[in-house]
Amino acid sequence: MLDEFDLIARIKARLSRADPRVRVGIGDDAAILAPIARGIATSVDTAVDGVHFDRRWLTFEDIGWRSYAAALSDLAAMNARPISGLLSLVLPPDLEDVSVLSIADGVAEAGDAFGAPVIGGNISSGRELSITSVVLGEEGERTTLRSGARVGDGVFVTGLVGAAALGQKLLAKHAPIDVFAARWRRPRPRFDLARAVASVATSAIDVSDGLAQDLGHICEASAVGALVEIDLLPVDPAAAEAARSIGEDASMLALGGGEDYELLFTASEAPPPDVATRIGSIVRGRGVRVLDRNGEEVAIALAGHRHRAGGSGA
Amino acid sequence: MLDEFDLIARIKARLSRADPRVRVGIGDDAAILAPIARGIATSVDTAVDGVHFDRRWLTFEDIGWRSYAAALSDLAAMNARPISGLLSLVLPPDLEDVSVLSIADGVAEAGDAFGAPVIGGNISSGRELSITSVVLGEEGERTTLRSGARVGDGVFVTGLVGAAALGQKLLAKHAPIDVFAARWRRPRPRFDLARAVASVATSAIDVSDGLAQDLGHICEASAVGALVEIDLLPVDPAAAEAARSIGEDASMLALGGGEDYELLFTASEAPPPDVATRIGSIVRGRGVRVLDRNGEEVAIALAGHRHRAGGSGA
Repeated sequence: MLDEFDLIARIKARLSRADPRVRVGIGDDAAILAPIARGIATSVDTAVDGVHFDRRWLTFEDIGWRSYAAALSDLAAMNARPISGLLSLVLPPDLEDVSVLSIADGVAEAGDAFGAPVIGGNISSGRELSITSVVLGEEGERTTLRSGARVGDGVFVTGLVGAAALGQKLLAKHAPIDVFAARWRRPRPRFDLARAVASVATSAIDVSDGLAQDLGHICEASAVGALVEIDLLPVDPAAAEAARSIGEDASMLALGGGEDYELLFTASEAPPPDVATRIGSIVRGRGVRVLDRNGEEVAIALAGHRHRAGGSGA
Repeated sequence: MLDEFDLIARIKARLSRADPRVRVGIGDDAAILAPIARGIATSVDTAVDGVHFDRRWLTFEDIGWRSYAAALSDLAAMNARPISGLLSLVLPPDLEDVSVLSIADGVAEAGDAFGAPVIGGNISSGRELSITSVVLGEEGERTTLRSGARVGDGVFVTGLVGAAALGQKLLAKHAPIDVFAARWRRPRPRFDLARAVASVATSAIDVSDGLAQDLGHICEASAVGALVEIDLLPVDPAAAEAARSIGEDASMLALGGGEDYELLFTASEAPPPDVATRIGSIVRGRGVRVLDRNGEEVAIALAGHRHRAGGSGA
């Protein structure tokens, strides 16, 4: 095992990037970013081994990527532009240095992909591997909160949903399909659509805990209810078929399983169809109801592994 | 046990503060700070149960305070003014809700004491309690790094050292003395002296791992060596006496035990005597050597509990 300071030096070498926005990067007591004109958006997210990720189906690079990408996705939900991040690792004694460096590589890849180099961090010993990602971004022209949904708004979601949860299910059944496994292993926050979403959205959130639960956070913050029509959910036909082959329903996986990191939002006017799909409506009352094609309410099983994890804000 | 969302609501109620610098606080996907004129200083620190703190000698409020204060101290070391912070808690299933709320209370007290309200956070389940504190601050007029020490500079430290490590030793021997226990339980970052330090310092760091190890970080970053004269260390006479009563030496505790959260710095001109005490010199070479009154080199035992913890930067 490397000496602590050698390990830090190697992690630093993997994460450091020349960036004019960074005045002081990794290696001092604090990092310093150059001034930014707008407000500063920031969020923190911790991924715990066996709770938020499963080493059986993920490489350490995947674990690094998805931890950091999940935190970045919170910036996309608010329409903030990513600038940088910090990383805090709790490392159990039996974790090999090469695994730690692979986690750093995965974080660095996600940071490069979304323009958010890691500018500082911390390593600690502990019994349980955990990865805490802090992200910093610049406020966009419009900021979308969870709290702006109004009765009569439509409910929309970007991209396709259900693929990430399906990817995980297929892996667990030893029947992986690369495209779905990748959706789960390497989520991509929708910075490409965040501005278009914010230009129409009355409220927004990212799909991390499962669409039903995430929509529930919007409803609670906005003091409204929501109706979702399950047949309107944008599910890849190939995902629907693969789900059926293992006795699952891709729409149900999207509603309960989450981790698609698409943007879920409400708006009074529809966005362009290449931005998002309408899946339901905001109504009076509280809570989220999901209706099948016969108008019958569908019960959603929430993903148990997110207990005490999601929805804690910022 | 409270429902997850009830627990979050109660934590939020304890941490939320009305603050004109905060545009969006706890409860959304990310927090948003109003623009700040200067650069943004940020750091992250994780405290792990049994590694960085010991529940036997600390209340949960103490654990919250010292975790957050330790992170804030990194801002003091750089002469950044604290603005806010984020908190990520990993909570084992057997930890009672009242304990979680007490941790939040301790964090809130430290945030109030140093002007850094918590504006966001996250809770996760896990097997091991850990507290990750993220701090955000505004760059000062002068920023002090670890890397500016020059041969010929004096080495200085603010305040009195050794009291925190002594406090812990006394607690462990069931011979607590309140004033020293408080120094260990409730460290106070030296924001009161940070500006005066930065006005003369060529390099600076806070004393978190032990004075010898922290000075070693300055030496490494600056590519210099340091000599410390043990008799010059500013030790409270009462601490010296209490240390002797349990067979310890307060100066050795300061050098190896750390957690004083004083500012350790180098400067070519001496600061006013009420700011800091000169304890040694920067010399050619590498590493820190500590000399006793006879000019003999003293071996420093490093605090073992900081393995894989300190000096990781930012």
